[in-house]
Amino acid sequence: MNCYRYPSEREWSELLKRPAKESGSLNATVQAVLDDIKQRGDEAVREYEARFDHVTLHELQVSEAEMEAAENEVDESLKEAILHAHRNIHAFHAAQRFTGERVEVEPGVTCWQKSIAIEKVGLYIPGGTAPLFSTVLMLAVPAQIAGCRDIVLCTPPRKDGSVNPAILVAARVAGVNRIYKIGGVQAIGAMAYGTESVPKVYKIFGPGNQYVMCAKQHVSLHDVAIDMPAGPSEVAVLADAGSNPCFVAADLLSQAEHGVDSQVLLITTSEEMIARVEAEVEAQLAVLPRREIAEEALTHSKIILVHDDEEMMRLCNAYAPEHLIIETSHYEELAARVVNAGSVFLGHYTPESAGDYASGTNHTLPTSGYAMAYSGVNLDSYQRKVTFQHITPEGVRRIGQTVAVMADNEQLAAHAHAMRVRMASVEGMD
Amino acid sequence: MNCYRYPSEREWSELLKRPAKESGSLNATVQAVLDDIKQRGDEAVREYEARFDHVTLHELQVSEAEMEAAENEVDESLKEAILHAHRNIHAFHAAQRFTGERVEVEPGVTCWQKSIAIEKVGLYIPGGTAPLFSTVLMLAVPAQIAGCRDIVLCTPPRKDGSVNPAILVAARVAGVNRIYKIGGVQAIGAMAYGTESVPKVYKIFGPGNQYVMCAKQHVSLHDVAIDMPAGPSEVAVLADAGSNPCFVAADLLSQAEHGVDSQVLLITTSEEMIARVEAEVEAQLAVLPRREIAEEALTHSKIILVHDDEEMMRLCNAYAPEHLIIETSHYEELAARVVNAGSVFLGHYTPESAGDYASGTNHTLPTSGYAMAYSGVNLDSYQRKVTFQHITPEGVRRIGQTVAVMADNEQLAAHAHAMRVRMASVEGMD
Repeated sequence: MNCYRYPSEREWSELLKRPAKESGSLNATVQAVLDDIKQRGDEAVREYEARFDHVTLHELQVSEAEMEAAENEVDESLKEAILHAHRNIHAFHAAQRFTGERVEVEPGVTCWQKSIAIEKVGLYIPGGTAPLFSTVLMLAVPAQIAGCRDIVLCTPPRKDGSVNPAILVAARVAGVNRIYKIGGVQAIGAMAYGTESVPKVYKIFGPGNQYVMCAKQHVSLHDVAIDMPAGPSEVAVLADAGSNPCFVAADLLSQAEHGVDSQVLLITTSEEMIARVEAEVEAQLAVLPRREIAEEALTHSKIILVHDDEEMMRLCNAYAPEHLIIETSHYEELAARVVNAGSVFLGHYTPESAGDYASGTNHTLPTSGYAMAYSGVNLDSYQRKVTFQHITPEGVRRIGQTVAVMADNEQLAAHAHAMRVRMASVEGMD
Repeated sequence: MNCYRYPSEREWSELLKRPAKESGSLNATVQAVLDDIKQRGDEAVREYEARFDHVTLHELQVSEAEMEAAENEVDESLKEAILHAHRNIHAFHAAQRFTGERVEVEPGVTCWQKSIAIEKVGLYIPGGTAPLFSTVLMLAVPAQIAGCRDIVLCTPPRKDGSVNPAILVAARVAGVNRIYKIGGVQAIGAMAYGTESVPKVYKIFGPGNQYVMCAKQHVSLHDVAIDMPAGPSEVAVLADAGSNPCFVAADLLSQAEHGVDSQVLLITTSEEMIARVEAEVEAQLAVLPRREIAEEALTHSKIILVHDDEEMMRLCNAYAPEHLIIETSHYEELAARVVNAGSVFLGHYTPESAGDYASGTNHTLPTSGYAMAYSGVNLDSYQRKVTFQHITPEGVRRIGQTVAVMADNEQLAAHAHAMRVRMASVEGMD
C-alpha cells in the first residue's frame, strides 16, 4: 500500500481522487442493445442471452418447479444464515416506516405527507463467479416492506440455463414475485421498456458491471428511475494507536478482494499502526483465495497519516467513503463528526462484512464520492412521499390574500383568480 | 377542450400520453456549453451571459448593496405575502425533520439512520417575463431547515444587469448564502463544476426551459445529483355532480396559463358537469391576460367522462399527475385511493394555487408521469440518510456465524475472515 505522511490539505483532492471512468465506447454499444430491446422485446432478449451468456432460453421466467428444486439444493446452514440475515434486514428496514403527521400550518390549512410504495420495481442481480444472494435480500426486503406490488428480478443464467439456487431461495424468502433469466444491458432494457414476458417497471435497483451501470444511466434519462449511480466498491478505515491491526488488516482486505478496482483507504493518527497493519496485511494476504485480486487492488490503495482526529475527520469527509469503519475506542466522538459516508461501522467488533450480510443495514451504497449527495438504498428508495393539503373556508380567508398577491406579482392572473373565486364564495361563511 | 366519453381501458395509455420530448439537437448544444464552462470557468460564463442574456457583467455575484436596495424596491404587500408564505412553507418542511431511532435488531447489534444535510446545494431560478420568487422559497426554505452549509442560487440577470428585487427579497428571507447573475446552461455548468466565482455544489435543484433541463440531466450522469427530471407542468381535476364548475374552470385555467405545453385534464363522473365547466372556462378565459397561452394549452387538454369513482381513480393513477385536485365533497374517500401523484388538493376550497404559493407544501413536483417513481422536493431532498451500526462482543457471537457462512458461499473469504478474527477474539469474553 502506498503511504502518505501528513499530506497538506492542498494535496488532498489529488490524493482522494477516484480513477476516471471512461464511457465513450460503452455508450454506443449500450444504446444499440437498449434500442433493440425496446423494438423487438423478448426476441432480442433471447438473442443477446445467446450471444453474451451463451445460453439458449425457451422460457425467460424461472418456473415454480425451479423455485422448489432450489429449496432442496441449498445447504441447510446457508438457508439458516439467509433466514437469519433476512430477519435482521427486515427488522431494521421495517423500523424505517414513515407515518406523516397532519400539520395544521395555520388554522384551516392542513398539510401532510403520505408514503406510497412505487408500484413496480425491478431488481438486478449480477452473475459472475459467486451468487450474490445477499444483494437479493438487500434489494427485495425493503421493496416488500414498502408494499411494492410487482417486484421483478433479473439475473443472468448460468451456462446450463439455470439460476444459482441460493439466489432463488433468497428471492423467495424476500418476496420477489417474478424472476427472469436475463443479464446485462438486455435485463435493464427489458425492465425499463417492458417486453412480452417482462413487465415494465418504474424504478430499477442493483449493482452490475460497467455495461449495466451505463445502461441504467441511459434508461434513467427518460424511462425509469434508478437507485443511484455507481462505481467500484470502497472503504475507509480510521485507526489510532489503540486499534487492532489484525482487525484493520482484515477489513482492508475484505474490501480489496472485491475487485482489482476496489478503493481501500486507511487513515490513521498513529505512525506505529502503519507498520503493524502492513505486516498483518502481508500475513493475511498469503492465505487469501482471491489473493491476486486483492494484491492488485492494494497497489493503488493508500495509507494516510494525519496529525489528529480533527484532520482525520476532515480528510474522511472530503473522501466521502461508501463504507467507513471507525476502528477506535472513542468511535462515538468521531461518528458525530461524520458528514459524508454511505454506511458507518463503529468500534472494534463491527467489520464491514457485518453490514454486507446481516447486521440489518443495507449494503447498496453510494460509491465514488456520491455519498456527498445520495443515501444508500433504504425504505424511502421504494416509496414516494406524496403531499396532501386541505383548506377550510377559514383557511381561505387566512391565506387567500397572500396567494392572490403573490400570483399577481408573478403575472399569473388565473392562479390568483382560482383563489379569489373561493375568497368570494366563503365571504361571510362560518 | 377535447371530450372523451367512457373510453375503454385499452384506449387509456394513448389518451394519457404526454407529448414526446425531442432532445436530439439539444444534446450537442448543451454539451458544448457545459464543456466550455468546465474548461474556462468565469470567462466562458461571462461570454454566454453576453450572448444569451445580452448583458455584460463585471461582477457575477449579487452584492450586499444590491440586496439592500431590493428591500426598498419591493412593495410592502408583496413583502408581507412572501413572509406569510415563508412561515407556512417553513412550518410544513420543519415538521418533516427526521430523528432516527436506534434499533437493536438483536442483542448486541444496533443500527440507526442519521439525516445529514448535503453540504452544498445549488438552486436555479429561471428568468422570463415574471420573477419566480415563490420558487426561491420552495427551494431554499428546506435547504435552510436541512442545514445545508452553502446555498447557492443562480438566476439570469435582466438586460440592465440587475436581478428582480422580489427574487432577492425571497432569497434573503429564505437564507440563501450567495446569488449569481447566471442563467441557462451556463448556470448549471457553473454550479456542477465550479468556477472562480461559483462554488461547485453536490446537488442542483429547480425548474427551467428545455436547455436547462437537458443540462441538468447531462451533469447528473457524472458530476452532481439533481432534484428530478422535469417536463411541462400539469394538473388533473376530479369532479362529480356536486363540484363547483366555476372553481373547476378556474383551476383548469390556472394550469393552462403556465405555458402552451401545459397539460390539463378533467376527469368526471358527471355528464352534466362537462357543459357547465366548458361554459365557465369560456367565460373566465375571455378576461384572462394570458388568454392566448391558455387557449393554446386547452387545444390539447382533455375532459374524460368515466362511469364511477373506481374508474376515475384508476384512470388518474395511470396518468400520475403532478397536481391532483379532488374537487368533490367526498374527497377523503378518493384521496385514500391515490397511488400516483405529486401533490394533492382536497375539497372545494383548496385550489392548486394555494400549494403553488402558501399552503406550506412544495411546488417543485414530478411531471410527465415521473410521480410513479419520484417524490416532489421535500426536506429529504436536501439530506442523506447515513446508516450507522455498532456490534458488541455478544452481537459478534450472535451474527458472526451467519456472516461467515454467507461470505463463504459468496466466495469472499476475506469478508468471512474479518468476522472470524472478531469471533475468535470475543470467545469467552463477557
